[in-house]
Amino acid sequence: MSEQVKTTRIPIVERVLEANDQLAETVRSELARRGIFAIDLIGAPGSGKTALLEATLRQLKGRRRPAVLVGDLATRRDGDRLARWCDRVVQISTGDGCHLEAGQVRDALTQLDLDGVDILFIENVGNLICPVGFDLGQAVKVGLFSLTEGDDKAAKHPYLVTAANLVLLNKIDLAPYVSFDRSGFEADVRLLNANVPILSVSATTGEGLDRWLDWLDRGVSGAQGARAT
Amino acid sequence: MSEQVKTTRIPIVERVLEANDQLAETVRSELARRGIFAIDLIGAPGSGKTALLEATLRQLKGRRRPAVLVGDLATRRDGDRLARWCDRVVQISTGDGCHLEAGQVRDALTQLDLDGVDILFIENVGNLICPVGFDLGQAVKVGLFSLTEGDDKAAKHPYLVTAANLVLLNKIDLAPYVSFDRSGFEADVRLLNANVPILSVSATTGEGLDRWLDWLDRGVSGAQGARAT
Repeated sequence: MSEQVKTTRIPIVERVLEANDQLAETVRSELARRGIFAIDLIGAPGSGKTALLEATLRQLKGRRRPAVLVGDLATRRDGDRLARWCDRVVQISTGDGCHLEAGQVRDALTQLDLDGVDILFIENVGNLICPVGFDLGQAVKVGLFSLTEGDDKAAKHPYLVTAANLVLLNKIDLAPYVSFDRSGFEADVRLLNANVPILSVSATTGEGLDRWLDWLDRGVSGAQGARAT
Repeated sequence: MSEQVKTTRIPIVERVLEANDQLAETVRSELARRGIFAIDLIGAPGSGKTALLEATLRQLKGRRRPAVLVGDLATRRDGDRLARWCDRVVQISTGDGCHLEAGQVRDALTQLDLDGVDILFIENVGNLICPVGFDLGQAVKVGLFSLTEGDDKAAKHPYLVTAANLVLLNKIDLAPYVSFDRSGFEADVRLLNANVPILSVSATTGEGLDRWLDWLDRGVSGAQGARAT
């Protein structure tokens, strides 16, 4: 029985992914047309995705026009937190869904006024595994890890590290209180993705955010330059 | 297209779950026959599942005969850590699988000498969502949260909290360094699962482990009493 299930299952999963990829391309084209730099932010529950975005939106105020989509199984707590710093936020409730899909992003974008928006943050559901396989139409994927999770999480989540355009290591303000081998972590990342930038940040104290903001600025410039050509 | 995919997809997922449930019942019967108390330990990446089991195995030495199954996408690091404290450990590599399934548990158990074993820990893949829906044949599910993840994680993961027979809150040694509203966290748990015990622990300092060990002892007594009757 389980063999039968397996052989039936695979083509269905592929069809779901194919349908997702088609929707993702629609989203990607629309964002490119508008010159919006879109970031799919992926991290474990509690890695600090919302805290990072709060700190980032605070810094971008007056300099950029951001929009945010945020996915969670339940509650609108993250959306409410982010709405304090940005007037274009949509909370996506996934129910028991363990990741966002391109169709949800497309639908959420119709609820926003995108005129003048230059950067879109998509905070994925807190999960290091399932979000990786689903293209959302983003320009880049950012893999967010945190010091309190332990230094083995890159090696244990190779698909995210391989797919990431940037690896962020958050909560470096807690370094004095937890055991974390930063060079070991970085070596694990390098084995999987030799050239990916690795930036250390603290969303709480603001340490390291300048380099993250520079990286975002380059992304926005790229997206707007591509639109102009 | 996406509608067509959805209607085709649901019965397949149900068949996978049905096949899993049948295997889980086989595992459950075998464990019950042997009087083994089996715990499915579910928590986010970096919540401290392996550290908790290390501390637990150290305490159980000479008092209990434990066995451990541990699931990860990649690496055998957790298995190696646990094998220092227990001679019956099987590492299950799930590849890109975001949770353990009953068939993996059944197969892993055939690799262990279960004679005299009275407690089985199954450390699930680090993920607060997908493992919840898959019965592994366990007696109980334990939901592990940690202080560094933030106090909103129970409300944001209602399926795990509802399904849990015990909620553990780990890393309480880090309380002075992070913001965490413990009464808010407990209130969120209580809304979802009114009577579930909530125990605060630190796998690092050992604080609170005595109550967790008492809880395990009662589970083992229950499993062995049920076998005797």
